[in-house]
Amino acid sequence: MKKINIGLIGFGNIGSGVVRILRDKKSLLSKKTGLDINIRRICDKDISSKRSISVEKSLLTRNPKDIIEDPQIDIMVELIGGIHPARELIIEALKRGKNIVTANKALLALHGQELFLEASEKGKNIYFEASVGAGIPIIKSLREGLVANKFNSILGILNGTSNYILSSMSKYNRTFNEALKEAKIKGFAEKDPTLDIEGMDSAHKLVLLTYLSFGKMINMRDIFIEGISRISLADVNYAKELGFEIKLLGIAQREGEDLEVRVHPTLIPQDHLLASVDGVFNAIYVEGDLAGDLLFYGPGAGQLSAASAVVSDIVDLTKDIKAGLFRPMMNTVPDKFVKRLRKIDETFSRYYIRFTTLDKPGVLAKISGILAKFGISIASVTQKEKSKAQTVPIVMIIYEAKEKDLKSALSLIDRLDAIKEKSIAIRMEEV
Amino acid sequence: MKKINIGLIGFGNIGSGVVRILRDKKSLLSKKTGLDINIRRICDKDISSKRSISVEKSLLTRNPKDIIEDPQIDIMVELIGGIHPARELIIEALKRGKNIVTANKALLALHGQELFLEASEKGKNIYFEASVGAGIPIIKSLREGLVANKFNSILGILNGTSNYILSSMSKYNRTFNEALKEAKIKGFAEKDPTLDIEGMDSAHKLVLLTYLSFGKMINMRDIFIEGISRISLADVNYAKELGFEIKLLGIAQREGEDLEVRVHPTLIPQDHLLASVDGVFNAIYVEGDLAGDLLFYGPGAGQLSAASAVVSDIVDLTKDIKAGLFRPMMNTVPDKFVKRLRKIDETFSRYYIRFTTLDKPGVLAKISGILAKFGISIASVTQKEKSKAQTVPIVMIIYEAKEKDLKSALSLIDRLDAIKEKSIAIRMEEV
Repeated sequence: MKKINIGLIGFGNIGSGVVRILRDKKSLLSKKTGLDINIRRICDKDISSKRSISVEKSLLTRNPKDIIEDPQIDIMVELIGGIHPARELIIEALKRGKNIVTANKALLALHGQELFLEASEKGKNIYFEASVGAGIPIIKSLREGLVANKFNSILGILNGTSNYILSSMSKYNRTFNEALKEAKIKGFAEKDPTLDIEGMDSAHKLVLLTYLSFGKMINMRDIFIEGISRISLADVNYAKELGFEIKLLGIAQREGEDLEVRVHPTLIPQDHLLASVDGVFNAIYVEGDLAGDLLFYGPGAGQLSAASAVVSDIVDLTKDIKAGLFRPMMNTVPDKFVKRLRKIDETFSRYYIRFTTLDKPGVLAKISGILAKFGISIASVTQKEKSKAQTVPIVMIIYEAKEKDLKSALSLIDRLDAIKEKSIAIRMEEV
Repeated sequence: MKKINIGLIGFGNIGSGVVRILRDKKSLLSKKTGLDINIRRICDKDISSKRSISVEKSLLTRNPKDIIEDPQIDIMVELIGGIHPARELIIEALKRGKNIVTANKALLALHGQELFLEASEKGKNIYFEASVGAGIPIIKSLREGLVANKFNSILGILNGTSNYILSSMSKYNRTFNEALKEAKIKGFAEKDPTLDIEGMDSAHKLVLLTYLSFGKMINMRDIFIEGISRISLADVNYAKELGFEIKLLGIAQREGEDLEVRVHPTLIPQDHLLASVDGVFNAIYVEGDLAGDLLFYGPGAGQLSAASAVVSDIVDLTKDIKAGLFRPMMNTVPDKFVKRLRKIDETFSRYYIRFTTLDKPGVLAKISGILAKFGISIASVTQKEKSKAQTVPIVMIIYEAKEKDLKSALSLIDRLDAIKEKSIAIRMEEV
């Protein structure tokens, strides 16, 4: 039986999961592939700490060259994360004729263009199923299962940590800080949760989904990114009363000849499937011109879940290696109907807005007067009971407005004497 | 550019969709595959009626031999449906070295074993993504994306017609017959809807899903199949009051060393994702040992949706043909932990039960006495208001009971003088 040799860089949580699966499922995988998938070397800075799985000492090395320069190694699996030295190691490995499997969304979002080009020039592939939605086979589905589709939009709950916090606020009436604290205790949030709660992680994944569905590698700085740290329990609850849940969505959406790519908290109707996605789960909603509206749902993180995707990439690669076949999997074709990226200021959306006002006559008249000046129409308005601070929250839903107009209106409104706090505006999505 | 020749048998609804996609997306597909995918011949009994897409007359033939015996044709796409002559045509085409793409779930459910064996002996493949869930890439996901997973269960809403009827009863308070009539008018139900509403179509698809997830081709007669024609609006509404929706599910589930394979109406909690799947949509819920709980959702039927899956199969095949590679896609491995099929009598489930009783003292005592004799415990019981027929519905939920015991108990209960109609028992699933 032909042997396929794997070199693993990064023997952390997911790495250990990959080793465990390749060992525990060896017989299943060789029956399915007709190949012996063999871990030849494991590289990590730390090769002395105990892992959840024990491996022969001779497999371990601290020197990545032991993998990159070993001509017997067919596939390098990169699971160290971060930009450096992951980027350099991958380029070096490609140059030496290795195929790559990685879960490194940050690296691919920032340097994907360069790495994919390098791979393609070398006749090699970079597989990255684990980088979005862990074990959910969304990348394979976009690339292969939906190969003939033109996509109108792809949007989803891409970050488990944020979704855990928002669900916990909505279901158990926790404040943002309580929910974040709890997420940390349960291991669903990092000590420094910035990347997750400020939307960067979602944006990294959205870059990859946009690449797969629209064939364009978007620059991170061209994505509008707003996280969830300003979402208050009050807003979660007012949204619920109105029939909505607040979710952090990553959205890539065609608007005529423009493409909008943005990450932000979003009100979605409670009866939409995405509204029922709770806890650390992820879900990706895809609108294809042929297959219609599809949803892919599953755990967004987890050792074995991510490792499941890594192993599926390895298996896909082994089959091609076995056949001596280079099948360029970066078969993305730029969507010719997309002419430009639309700037966030030019996008239109319905909004949920909460004003914090003094309980004085005429406040609502002033607010609605300013909105009207910018051509913004009010769909509904509710004045809530006085809060402890003796301010009165006014909750408003407005019809589609241009972001720029709304921003201008809100900046005028926020200067009114009767407005006591910066007004909160959250986008609404009709999915 | 290398040409891959397709012979299409069956120029009906889906067939026309395939022709349309291969024509409209020719440039996209050749960019993605590096191949010219060419429709060389189209066979149908009727080659004179107008289709939604017009093709050159010279492409059309009434004689399947023009496809099967044409050595230039690489892939035969079978879309005539039914068992005969589809089975014979596929076997003949395999013998002549063609790969097959089909959407024929009934054929594969009944003769899959034979056909897959024939394909494998000839070094050819049968692809069938469109046979379950139309454009949802569930088959590719089970086979490739989740390649390392052992499955604990796979269950889903597999029939759009039945789901349309049940949603319409639940959402719009329609009777079964009203909902069925409406489904027919909208084209969601056939003139003779038996296959759909009696669960046969779901069972065909479940055979395929079971094959893909447990590696076993189940005989149709070993599947317990119960349709939705006995579901009344009253039951839909009582279930709702209790917090459940009734859905027709196909379920393959591991229970120790046994495998349960069954199709039946099922009460599922309203907050479960499957409960929100409305109309003609399908959804498949998969529990993998590595990837966790996943859901795949999308339109369960439709010309372009099914054709999208057929074209993805064609593309997968073309890539292998191009490389001169035979990649046996029937890489299912029998799940070695499954020792036998469990007979429905031996299965355990919670049940929703509705008794139609006379309004007399002591009825509930008699019913619960009989249940107790069979060791069946009651979880909740509600006596509803008297119906027009002067009978009183008693709605009960029971804890897990063996099907055989419940059947015996109900047959005794139904013989009581105070019971005026055959009692209704519907399974509940904890998903």
